[in-house]
Amino acid sequence: MTHKTYDLVIIGAGPAGLTASIYARRARLDAVVLERLVPGGQILLSQRIENYPGVPLPISPKRLMEKMQRQAENLGMKLEQVEAKRIELDGEKKIIHTLSDKKYTTLAVIIASGTEPSKLGAEGETTFVGRGVSYCATCDAPFFKDQEVMVVGGGNTALQETLHLVRFARKVHLVHRRGMLRAEKILQERAFRNPKVEIIFRSVVKVIYGDSQVEGVKLKDLETGKIKKVPCSGVFISVGLKPNTDFIRGLVELDKKGFVKTRANLETNVPSIFACGDVRKNLLKQVVVACGEGALAVASAEKYINKVKGIEYK
Amino acid sequence: MTHKTYDLVIIGAGPAGLTASIYARRARLDAVVLERLVPGGQILLSQRIENYPGVPLPISPKRLMEKMQRQAENLGMKLEQVEAKRIELDGEKKIIHTLSDKKYTTLAVIIASGTEPSKLGAEGETTFVGRGVSYCATCDAPFFKDQEVMVVGGGNTALQETLHLVRFARKVHLVHRRGMLRAEKILQERAFRNPKVEIIFRSVVKVIYGDSQVEGVKLKDLETGKIKKVPCSGVFISVGLKPNTDFIRGLVELDKKGFVKTRANLETNVPSIFACGDVRKNLLKQVVVACGEGALAVASAEKYINKVKGIEYK
Repeated sequence: MTHKTYDLVIIGAGPAGLTASIYARRARLDAVVLERLVPGGQILLSQRIENYPGVPLPISPKRLMEKMQRQAENLGMKLEQVEAKRIELDGEKKIIHTLSDKKYTTLAVIIASGTEPSKLGAEGETTFVGRGVSYCATCDAPFFKDQEVMVVGGGNTALQETLHLVRFARKVHLVHRRGMLRAEKILQERAFRNPKVEIIFRSVVKVIYGDSQVEGVKLKDLETGKIKKVPCSGVFISVGLKPNTDFIRGLVELDKKGFVKTRANLETNVPSIFACGDVRKNLLKQVVVACGEGALAVASAEKYINKVKGIEYK
Repeated sequence: MTHKTYDLVIIGAGPAGLTASIYARRARLDAVVLERLVPGGQILLSQRIENYPGVPLPISPKRLMEKMQRQAENLGMKLEQVEAKRIELDGEKKIIHTLSDKKYTTLAVIIASGTEPSKLGAEGETTFVGRGVSYCATCDAPFFKDQEVMVVGGGNTALQETLHLVRFARKVHLVHRRGMLRAEKILQERAFRNPKVEIIFRSVVKVIYGDSQVEGVKLKDLETGKIKKVPCSGVFISVGLKPNTDFIRGLVELDKKGFVKTRANLETNVPSIFACGDVRKNLLKQVVVACGEGALAVASAEKYINKVKGIEYK
């Protein structure tokens, strides 16, 4: 059986993967993008984007990502809805195995598989997913009209979730384990001046309790060690990102949290495999950073591919 | 005399500097942007942008950069039209001296001063600037209606200049010293199939000659060593970028071409001084890459500033 050999397989169609696709098509590489869900990535869980340069008014992530997708499609992006399961090295070729048993043979790979929300690890968390526990206020806020809810976290996402929830909920408790927030100051200011928001610092969620639905949370005060019950019907968890790297574990070098380590040119420890965007061990998880990395990953991959083909620029 | 001390001075208001300004204002840093010309940067010399992710239809650089500027202004960007001359280290503070004798005292600096077109170094080049020699087809193409012109270079800019010039000129000679082009394939294809474009490989410009205006170019064929005269009335030079780093030479570590060397977090060898965008020794000169770096430079600068102020997140 012979497979077609692609120049490049891009795994993931979020901001990094779609930008990689735009640049790959402009470079006339024979590329395919593999996405297990829908194009757009993790940013689709956000309510709006205010800091993507060149878009002065707030835009919904859905709209911005549709534009990137259209831009890639106009250039002839080939997109397939499959989930990568494993990458096999076969000399100069790499074979991407997928959950659907479809295989892709390629010269180079760009990992742009992004992240998903981290679990908190509290008692009751898994039990109540979909019954009060949520990882996406954008998706679930309307279910909590006039109710009391909690957001756990202190970064940009937690603050954005909080500021979205106040439009529905009666009250939002923002719980953070540290004594200050990490989010952009502009978001902190908005939260501080909203009378519906109550911030509880230096506390962690121990238990999420309830009968069939969430009824409240047991918080531990990290200074006094005391446990306090906070009644609420929703718990929104924004405590960080977990990289989608299970399918390359053991092949590509990861940091201890599972993010892909790369060199400056975004190549991993495996020549021909590159990584970009949130899945990479980088210093800032932002759409525009992921896009910039997507462009660079293609430039590096293209150099590699041209070298293998003996047509490098010199 | 006491000066106000800024948190951050951003030098340059191109894509990197404007993005840095957006992120700095969102972080509520007390920042000022210094620009010697007008906001927008070197990209304003281009005809159009097709590969900025999220902008599916071609857009003029002027329009895209106006949007970034408006976005920064909406957040309260402070922009001053001055040219930085020198940075003086004064303990924890840095003092930016300018050509206008105005000084700015600050805790941190982001260098986003970009590049300008490199000179070719050919005989006659300087003599005929503005009289046939140009570094910007977008600006000057209309002067060459129905005439014969030359473009020198093989990268994206050279090809974009060529593809813009064919709309005015009768014929465009594209001269490149190598045997292949470096530009995106999509641009190469467009040039190859345009009957007005003639590509001359493995040749360099030795002399640009004429009386009061350019009348032609003497090319040297690098394989045969022969000199050939090509009559033309315009010469558009796109042979690379020269970083605007004269004002930091001797203070900040530069590579041999004058680009700023940084660590992964975009800090230079001088703590508190960061660099981003085209002025940096990076691997790809693209608007979206510069923007991504602008965002990261602020995140790193903010960490530094908060540490100096004793208010770092921990």
